[in-house]
Amino acid sequence: MQQIFVCTVLKGEQLLNENNALAVAFKKTKHQVVGHGFRNIQVLKEALMNSDGQQESDIYGKGKIIEDFQKKMAEYLGKEEAVFFPSGTMAQQITLRIWCDKKGLTKVAYHPLCHIEIHEEDGLKELHHIESVLLADKSRLIQFEDVVNMGEDIACLLLELPQREIGGQLPDFETLESISAYCHEKGIKLHLDGARLFEILPYYKKSAAEICKLFDSVYVSFYKGIGGLAGAILAGDKDFTEESKVWKRRYGGDLISLYPYMISADYYFNKRINKMKQYHEEALELAGLFNQCHAISTKPLEPVSNMFHVHFDGPKEKLESTLIAIYKETGIGLTGYLREISEDACFYEVSIGDQYGNIPKEGLRKVFQMLDESMRELKE
Amino acid sequence: MQQIFVCTVLKGEQLLNENNALAVAFKKTKHQVVGHGFRNIQVLKEALMNSDGQQESDIYGKGKIIEDFQKKMAEYLGKEEAVFFPSGTMAQQITLRIWCDKKGLTKVAYHPLCHIEIHEEDGLKELHHIESVLLADKSRLIQFEDVVNMGEDIACLLLELPQREIGGQLPDFETLESISAYCHEKGIKLHLDGARLFEILPYYKKSAAEICKLFDSVYVSFYKGIGGLAGAILAGDKDFTEESKVWKRRYGGDLISLYPYMISADYYFNKRINKMKQYHEEALELAGLFNQCHAISTKPLEPVSNMFHVHFDGPKEKLESTLIAIYKETGIGLTGYLREISEDACFYEVSIGDQYGNIPKEGLRKVFQMLDESMRELKE
Repeated sequence: MQQIFVCTVLKGEQLLNENNALAVAFKKTKHQVVGHGFRNIQVLKEALMNSDGQQESDIYGKGKIIEDFQKKMAEYLGKEEAVFFPSGTMAQQITLRIWCDKKGLTKVAYHPLCHIEIHEEDGLKELHHIESVLLADKSRLIQFEDVVNMGEDIACLLLELPQREIGGQLPDFETLESISAYCHEKGIKLHLDGARLFEILPYYKKSAAEICKLFDSVYVSFYKGIGGLAGAILAGDKDFTEESKVWKRRYGGDLISLYPYMISADYYFNKRINKMKQYHEEALELAGLFNQCHAISTKPLEPVSNMFHVHFDGPKEKLESTLIAIYKETGIGLTGYLREISEDACFYEVSIGDQYGNIPKEGLRKVFQMLDESMRELKE
Repeated sequence: MQQIFVCTVLKGEQLLNENNALAVAFKKTKHQVVGHGFRNIQVLKEALMNSDGQQESDIYGKGKIIEDFQKKMAEYLGKEEAVFFPSGTMAQQITLRIWCDKKGLTKVAYHPLCHIEIHEEDGLKELHHIESVLLADKSRLIQFEDVVNMGEDIACLLLELPQREIGGQLPDFETLESISAYCHEKGIKLHLDGARLFEILPYYKKSAAEICKLFDSVYVSFYKGIGGLAGAILAGDKDFTEESKVWKRRYGGDLISLYPYMISADYYFNKRINKMKQYHEEALELAGLFNQCHAISTKPLEPVSNMFHVHFDGPKEKLESTLIAIYKETGIGLTGYLREISEDACFYEVSIGDQYGNIPKEGLRKVFQMLDESMRELKE
C-alpha cells in the first residue's frame, strides 16, 4: 500500500501544458469538468478590470492595499494579525523555523506526504537544518495516537487539512480538538497547512475562525479553490507575524510590489468564498458518477471538499486513448493528464470549480456511459 | 567619514507614502523631477494593455511566457541561460550559496554597503551560515588592491555596479578587467549585482554582454531604471542556473505564476532600454544644477548613471520647509523625503526616469534659483 502512495505524488502535471495527446485533446474540449478555467492572463485582467489605476502600490509590505487585505484575512481567520506572502512554501518554512527557535528545538512533525516534505526540494532541511518526524503512513491520515506517540521534543506539529496527496481526506473535528488540546498541554505549537481551508468549511460546518482557533498559526492559499494567481496569507499572534516579516525579508519575499497577487486574491476570494458548498456538493455528485463506473473508484469515496482522486484500474496508455475518444465524441474534458501508479493502474486529481456547473447534463451522462463501457471492455 | 555613510543607508523612504508634510507636498506637485511616475496599479494595467488574455500563464517556472523572456535576457546578457526570480535578494543569496557549495568554502566578499549586507536582515548568514568579508570602507569603491588583499579562501566576490549607497559610483572598466582576471586566476567566482546594470551601459560605452563576460553570474533588476513592478533575472552557465532553480523552489520563489512581473519587466524593458543614455545625460545636467547651488553637492559630482545623491549642508527640518515652499511656488517636486546624516546635514537619492523630460525648463530654473537663495539665507 505504502508503495502506491510514493508514486502517486502530484507534481503539477494537472497544470502543465504538456504536449502529449491527452493534454492537447483536453485543451480542445468545449467544456472542462474541473477547475475554474484555463490559467491565462485573462485571470489577472479580470481581477484588475474594476480596480482604480491611481491606487498606490504596496511598498515592501507596507501601504493601504496590503494592510487592508491582511486585516480582512486576519479577521476572517480569527487571528490577531496576518501577513501576505508570495507563496505557502515560504510562509510555512518560516513558520516552522520561528516555532523551532522559540522552543529551542530543531524537530517538527507532519504527514509523510505533506507539501513541505515532498514538494519543496527539502528547503526546510537545507535552509534551516530542521528535522522532520513523519507521522502516520503514506496511505492514511494522522490520528490522535500518532500525535501522542511522536514524542515531546517536537517544536511544532503541522496538520494539512485536507490531506491532499491521499485525495483530500479529513479527520473528524473531535480528533482535531483532541490533537489541539494535547499539543497545547505539552507546549507543542500546532500549525495549520490550510492551502485548501476554504474548501473544507462546508464539510465541517464551521467558520474558518472556529477551525483556526485550534491552531497557533495558519496558512491559507489563494490559487486553489479561490482561483487567484498565487500568494498566501500567514496568520497568528502579532509576535509571530512580526517575526515572520523579518524572515520574509530574509527570503527575498518582501517584494516592492505584491499587489498583482493581492488584488487577484481579494477579487477571487469575494467571487468564490460563498461557492465552496456548491463545489463540495458537485464533487459528491461527480465522485458518485465515477464510482458507478466499472473498475473506477474515487479516493475518498465521498469527497469532503471540492477535491478527490480518481483511480482507474487499467494501464495509463489505454486510459489515455479512452479519454481522448470520449473528449472528441462529447466535447467534454475530464482531465489533461493521468499519472501512473503501476502497470495496471493510474489516477488523476479532481478540483471542482466554476466550470462544473456549465457542463450540459446530457453530455455528462454520455461521458460516463462511454467511460463505463470502455472500462468494461478493457477489463474483459 | 565612515560615520556618515553608516547613517546614509536608504531603506525605501523614497518610495514609502509617508504622511509627513514633505511627502504630501511632493505628491501634490504637478511635475516630479525623479522617477517614471508614481508606483500605482496603472503601471501594471499599462503593461497588460496589449497583452493577449488567452496567453497561458507560466506554471512553476515552465511555459512559453517565462521561457521566452529568460531566453531573451540570456542573450542580452551574453550568458548561456537565465532564470526569472521574484527578487534579487533571493537570486543573490542563492548565487552565493551555490558558489560556496561548489568551492567547499563558506566565505564570500563584498562591499560593506551592498544590498545583501544591509537590506536583507542577514538572510545570507541566517539561512546559509555564510561569512562575509567586507572590502574597502563604507565611503569608497572596492579597488583592485582590496581584492588582492582579501585572501584566497573566498568562494565568491560580489561586485555591485554602480555602488548605490555611495551615490552610484563605478570603478573604471580596466579595474573591472583586472579584478576579473585575478579572480579567474585564483578560482574565485565573480558575481555581478547588476540591479542597475542597464543604467551604467552608456557610461562604460559597453554592451551588457561585454560587461557580463567578466562575471561568472549576473543578476539584473526590472524595477529600477526599467520601472517594472518587481522581479529579477539571474544568468550564468546552465549548470549554475539549473541549480539556482532548485534553490528557487526551496525558497518558495518558484511561484505557480510569475507572469505579472515578467510581462511588466518585458514591456518596460522594451520601452526604456534605449533611454538609458538620455537618463544619464539628464542626471549630469541635474547634478550640475545642484552643484551650482550654495551648500549643496552631489555624490558623485558627475553621475555615471541615472542616479546620484544630493547632499544638503543644513538641518533636515529646515530643508523640508524650504522644499515645501519651492514645491508650492513652482509646482515642481524634487523629492518626497530627506534623510538625516547629522544635525546639520541631510541627503536624498535621485533616479532619473521618464518624468525629467517633462519638466518645464523655466520652472526648473526657478526651483534652483529659490533653492540657491534659501541655502544662502540658511547658511548666513
